[in-house]
Amino acid sequence: MNTISINKLSDDLLSELKDNANKYRLKISKNTLGTTIIDAGIKAQGSLEAGLKISEICMGGLGSISINSCNFSDLISWNITVSASQPVLSCLASQYAGWSLSHNDFFSLGSGPARALAKREKIFDEIGYSDQYSKTSIVLETNKIPPDEIIEKISKDCKVDKDKITIILAPTTSMVGNLQVVARVLEVALHKAHELKFPLHKIVDGIGSAPIPPIAKDTLTGMGRTNDSIIYGGNIFLTIDGSSDEAKKLAKELPSQNSKDFGIPFKEIFEKYQGDFYKIDGSLFSPAKVSINSLESGETFHGGIIKSDLVEKSFF
Amino acid sequence: MNTISINKLSDDLLSELKDNANKYRLKISKNTLGTTIIDAGIKAQGSLEAGLKISEICMGGLGSISINSCNFSDLISWNITVSASQPVLSCLASQYAGWSLSHNDFFSLGSGPARALAKREKIFDEIGYSDQYSKTSIVLETNKIPPDEIIEKISKDCKVDKDKITIILAPTTSMVGNLQVVARVLEVALHKAHELKFPLHKIVDGIGSAPIPPIAKDTLTGMGRTNDSIIYGGNIFLTIDGSSDEAKKLAKELPSQNSKDFGIPFKEIFEKYQGDFYKIDGSLFSPAKVSINSLESGETFHGGIIKSDLVEKSFF
Amino acid sequence: MNTISINKLSDDLLSELKDNANKYRLKISKNTLGTTIIDAGIKAQGSLEAGLKISEICMGGLGSISINSCNFSDLISWNITVSASQPVLSCLASQYAGWSLSHNDFFSLGSGPARALAKREKIFDEIGYSDQYSKTSIVLETNKIPPDEIIEKISKDCKVDKDKITIILAPTTSMVGNLQVVARVLEVALHKAHELKFPLHKIVDGIGSAPIPPIAKDTLTGMGRTNDSIIYGGNIFLTIDGSSDEAKKLAKELPSQNSKDFGIPFKEIFEKYQGDFYKIDGSLFSPAKVSINSLESGETFHGGIIKSDLVEKSFF
Repeated sequence: MNTISINKLSDDLLSELKDNANKYRLKISKNTLGTTIIDAGIKAQGSLEAGLKISEICMGGLGSISINSCNFSDLISWNITVSASQPVLSCLASQYAGWSLSHNDFFSLGSGPARALAKREKIFDEIGYSDQYSKTSIVLETNKIPPDEIIEKISKDCKVDKDKITIILAPTTSMVGNLQVVARVLEVALHKAHELKFPLHKIVDGIGSAPIPPIAKDTLTGMGRTNDSIIYGGNIFLTIDGSSDEAKKLAKELPSQNSKDFGIPFKEIFEKYQGDFYKIDGSLFSPAKVSINSLESGETFHGGIIKSDLVEKSFF
Repeated sequence: MNTISINKLSDDLLSELKDNANKYRLKISKNTLGTTIIDAGIKAQGSLEAGLKISEICMGGLGSISINSCNFSDLISWNITVSASQPVLSCLASQYAGWSLSHNDFFSLGSGPARALAKREKIFDEIGYSDQYSKTSIVLETNKIPPDEIIEKISKDCKVDKDKITIILAPTTSMVGNLQVVARVLEVALHKAHELKFPLHKIVDGIGSAPIPPIAKDTLTGMGRTNDSIIYGGNIFLTIDGSSDEAKKLAKELPSQNSKDFGIPFKEIFEKYQGDFYKIDGSLFSPAKVSINSLESGETFHGGIIKSDLVEKSFF
Repeated sequence: MNTISINKLSDDLLSELKDNANKYRLKISKNTLGTTIIDAGIKAQGSLEAGLKISEICMGGLGSISINSCNFSDLISWNITVSASQPVLSCLASQYAGWSLSHNDFFSLGSGPARALAKREKIFDEIGYSDQYSKTSIVLETNKIPPDEIIEKISKDCKVDKDKITIILAPTTSMVGNLQVVARVLEVALHKAHELKFPLHKIVDGIGSAPIPPIAKDTLTGMGRTNDSIIYGGNIFLTIDGSSDEAKKLAKELPSQNSKDFGIPFKEIFEKYQGDFYKIDGSLFSPAKVSINSLESGETFHGGIIKSDLVEKSFF
């Protein structure tokens, strides 16, 4: 059904990024394996514009991401607006940070089109998409250079030569890292829908927005802000190829407010659980507000609530 | 004065669309006449991104259309923002769905750059624009494949070979159909100005916005929502090469609230007239709110009112 | 450190502008020296789309400028949103109208990438950026064709042949002139930061927005509206490579409200000083509202206030 190559589509975006590394304030190098390493926020500063482009690479070349001025709150004036051709492919086959890559003390969750070549995650069974391409790229939210073993694993699992792989590194506390997380507002909704056992093939179109956080000093605060942007400030619209009942149920169950952990900034939740990420109620990871449009009935159902006070508390 | 070819400009956009048919979820085929048929919402699903691109094709390659997050109302968070180089050419010589195409039980109003080749409509006398190009495209808001006779008529009237014609089909109840109608918020203003006998050559620049409706199940509801988006939620800004008196008069007369049918959702109006479209007061078809800037005086006049309650009633 | 050529980057944008002169409603000619003159608002009308493109040329190809719908006030519905890769280069080495060009009765302040070749201004000592390129462009907010002596000066100072220079002319009372001034909302913030002796190398990323004014009849009113858009309606976000104390101080001192002239429309201030621009308190030229994010601490400080009533008074 789908003859799209998200690795090819994103490679076109990647070329532009590479050709303009100085403009985007990126440091690009080849390691001894021939793999291209794009430092987008470790020693390099990165930039807002790089953040937008890299987020579009994360979305496999199927998404559009822009900065919009908005009246989110008295102190928050800009957000990210995301839309996607084929949200399931874009968000779940590519953007979702679901590929666990670890070796010794290195650990990162890989995001981007490489995931659709490797298909190491269970979610690909349901998405039913396979990509084949001679080049690939992956985005890691980290401040460490991945060891050679990680690259060899990516090469093997993706069936792509090591010198045809590009690894983009962006820590949470960089502008690129910051934006590429917030740009996941739609992806987070789709992932939560999947957790709720909503059939992915019924998700047709999607739009999302979330306020742009200021950059944090430390990873925990940064993680707190980007999560709060989505959990308390994120807003999405989905059309589904399903009934009113399905749309109504999804609108009710999808928003973050269904979580028992809803109501305090993410950083405080994280500290409450002594930093054990997996103790956090998984249903928290979802946009604050949702609108679900049933294509079968034409009806739309709304759920959730934007908590701009909590977003301001988290950001400032 | 104008050596622009809107058929050439839009052909560049069309090529990108054709090259990425799978990405945009379009079904593209050639019929027996060699004409390219783009199914953008009948059997194909289409997509948000396809809707934006096809709307830009409708505008003859002279318009920019984007999705913006906005605080339209508590439940409506995104709109379409439209601007145009040369709004009269873009909106009236191309985008306006003014070319009546019928054969037996097929009927559709053609929109897009083909109109400026065929020039079968009276409005072209006033626009004073002629295009010549070897290829053309037309957008039809329909769920039916046009019969060969329609294509032969287009070929003859446009003086373009049948195998150089592209027909884009998007029903009202598809995402592409939905967006391409709402993207007419500026065009509707220009058309109403023309109905009010305002000289088109005095219209210089324009911006418009309108909220994005959810997709409807049936054509009537879909038509209601897209019309209500503009009639009760649309907002436009025009600069005119005219006096303050002209701007003031236009700002007063242009908005939809001047219509005797203003005040209830479009679908109810339509039903009130037993589905006879031509009984609806024509002055209703206009944005809700307008700002008209006189370039002669520098003054700006405002008129109309956004009725977000009626838009919500229509959408949900 | 910076091997970017803003003259090369902006030349790519310029080519698109030249190839589509009719679309953008520009008049392009070569004068007797071989210099390309782009009339973007004198005899040519220009257009909104041309205004956006020319503003991006002004920013040396490092900025993104878009029209966003917003709820600025009851009567103001659209603004310009600006972001930049490398705001200091983009805004101060290119966009700032700082190159004084005068000959007999011709006077204009040059903006755009030519400034970074000529480097005739003191501010380049601090920016520490040098460009070299065989072609260049400059934007002049004027309704007069510059005399040959000005072109010879540009050629000599930029070390660029006269037939490789493009001069873009846009009076304040044209759409292009209007937009390209308002698109300076971020530049004005950076310039004010510089006036406050804030070290430019500490400015990392920036976003800005300002409402789009209607076009004025006369230069003084036009200048008033574009200045008021920024001074009373402009809003910016900056990340700085500095401490909380530095961010706090900058957030306090940067906004326009620190000026003794703050509080009445710019045109009235100008008249109060009998049209002597240099009597106006320089600290007025700054956005109304600012948010400064310290990258050292992760804290953000806010300052200033949007005065939508004054913006409306100025615009209408």
